[in-house]
Amino acid sequence: MKVTIIGLGLIGGSMALDIKRIYENVVITGIDSNENHLDDAIKLGLIHQKGKLNDEFEGDFIILAVPVDIALVILPKILDNISDNTIVIDVGSTKKPICDTVKNHPKRGNFLATHPIAGTEFSGPKAAIENLFKDKVNIICEIEKTTYKNQEKALELFRNLKMRIRYMEPKSHDKHIAYVSHLSHISSFMLGKTVIEKEKDEKDIFDMAGSGFESTVRLAKSSPSMWTPIFKQNKKQIVKSLDEYIANLSSFKLFLEADDYESIFNEMKNTNRIKEILK
Amino acid sequence: MKVTIIGLGLIGGSMALDIKRIYENVVITGIDSNENHLDDAIKLGLIHQKGKLNDEFEGDFIILAVPVDIALVILPKILDNISDNTIVIDVGSTKKPICDTVKNHPKRGNFLATHPIAGTEFSGPKAAIENLFKDKVNIICEIEKTTYKNQEKALELFRNLKMRIRYMEPKSHDKHIAYVSHLSHISSFMLGKTVIEKEKDEKDIFDMAGSGFESTVRLAKSSPSMWTPIFKQNKKQIVKSLDEYIANLSSFKLFLEADDYESIFNEMKNTNRIKEILK
Repeated sequence: MKVTIIGLGLIGGSMALDIKRIYENVVITGIDSNENHLDDAIKLGLIHQKGKLNDEFEGDFIILAVPVDIALVILPKILDNISDNTIVIDVGSTKKPICDTVKNHPKRGNFLATHPIAGTEFSGPKAAIENLFKDKVNIICEIEKTTYKNQEKALELFRNLKMRIRYMEPKSHDKHIAYVSHLSHISSFMLGKTVIEKEKDEKDIFDMAGSGFESTVRLAKSSPSMWTPIFKQNKKQIVKSLDEYIANLSSFKLFLEADDYESIFNEMKNTNRIKEILK
Repeated sequence: MKVTIIGLGLIGGSMALDIKRIYENVVITGIDSNENHLDDAIKLGLIHQKGKLNDEFEGDFIILAVPVDIALVILPKILDNISDNTIVIDVGSTKKPICDTVKNHPKRGNFLATHPIAGTEFSGPKAAIENLFKDKVNIICEIEKTTYKNQEKALELFRNLKMRIRYMEPKSHDKHIAYVSHLSHISSFMLGKTVIEKEKDEKDIFDMAGSGFESTVRLAKSSPSMWTPIFKQNKKQIVKSLDEYIANLSSFKLFLEADDYESIFNEMKNTNRIKEILK
């Protein structure tokens, strides 16, 4: 089996690790605009060899795991250059822009839009971990636009990675993911910012930070190069979710200012339901 | 050694577990307004026997681990009823109100105000865990108002629990902790609320939630009975931190609406510093 992975970050690198472990005789070619990442990927045993973006692509799978703005630019070019038996799978955090970009491409049937709900706050090939995808949800969009043979190949790969599949329209994906992923990142980044700004005049504040703060602010370690284009592509939904979040925070603040502790209590009590929901 | 623990939640219960492990021949008496918690604490081996709040207190340590509003009410009564050799240690998340409450009490020297920066989102005796306090910071306020003999006893206990000690003025504690703890809880609760509200019309949204969302929303599982009085007692500082947080979120939203992705990138890049800070 031949697999090409474009973008050797956390997701591409972890995909490489698992594919190497699962498939005997696989040859994994890695492509990355960052030469250091390529060298690291070789050293870490993620890939067998380096490739170039303007190669003619053959083989079974191309995994496209680059920032979502770059994916929009290179996906059509990759589709121009692939054999009929090759499927390109993207793994980005927004789905409507990429589906729209290739909707009329003659090789649309060789593309599958996915979003594996997996990751950490770290990035680059050194952040790759084994079994990252095990038991995680993989959201697949517009499955019907991928040829049946290619669907089968991709689904077998995901089965081997032990992922749970959900099918969803791209627009619906982008709307929901704004709430359960993109908004969390912004809330975390801005919490980190608020506390860092405070720290300028107040030393030692971080000595007082416990595991609760660390957990809430963990996503503020995420890569700006990866997240800026995601926010750009999903701007409309994110602005909406941010409006709702800010309104909830403001109303909590008003309850506090009005000494309305019954409402404060109820806000928290009602939200405790998250315990059951996330089980 | 005799120890009385008032409030057998996560903190009181974990304290009981460690004290029992560290000190041979200790007898731990537990007091809790919830009879089920007392029974659980006996069953779980946290305490040796049940006590009553109106007992005369003797022995070496009384650990006061109740919600901060209740602590203000019962601490003066406990101090009225203790022997000269007993030290009362509170572990609440606000420090100025409790220090103010007992500042003129004749037994002020028998009290030590502390805040161990340790915990999880869970509560009750079943949430107690061993070694919760190991390597964690314990903030001590107004150490100079505790008699020297009692200071020594308390510091030995904390040394045995392997805690790192920081000294701080109560007002300064409450100001800083608003940022690194209380604000995180509100940001997490309101994030949970925003997403739960969305889920009312959009099913299955939580299937899409990954570990990032779980981490950011973890504190929204916390106990409203514990947190409402904390927010009440630290209202002024929390309102201030909320104002700053909301302002940062609003400005992020404005950058997004204005398609100013350079600023979006920089906001995140600058906040990435949290990686080094939290190391």
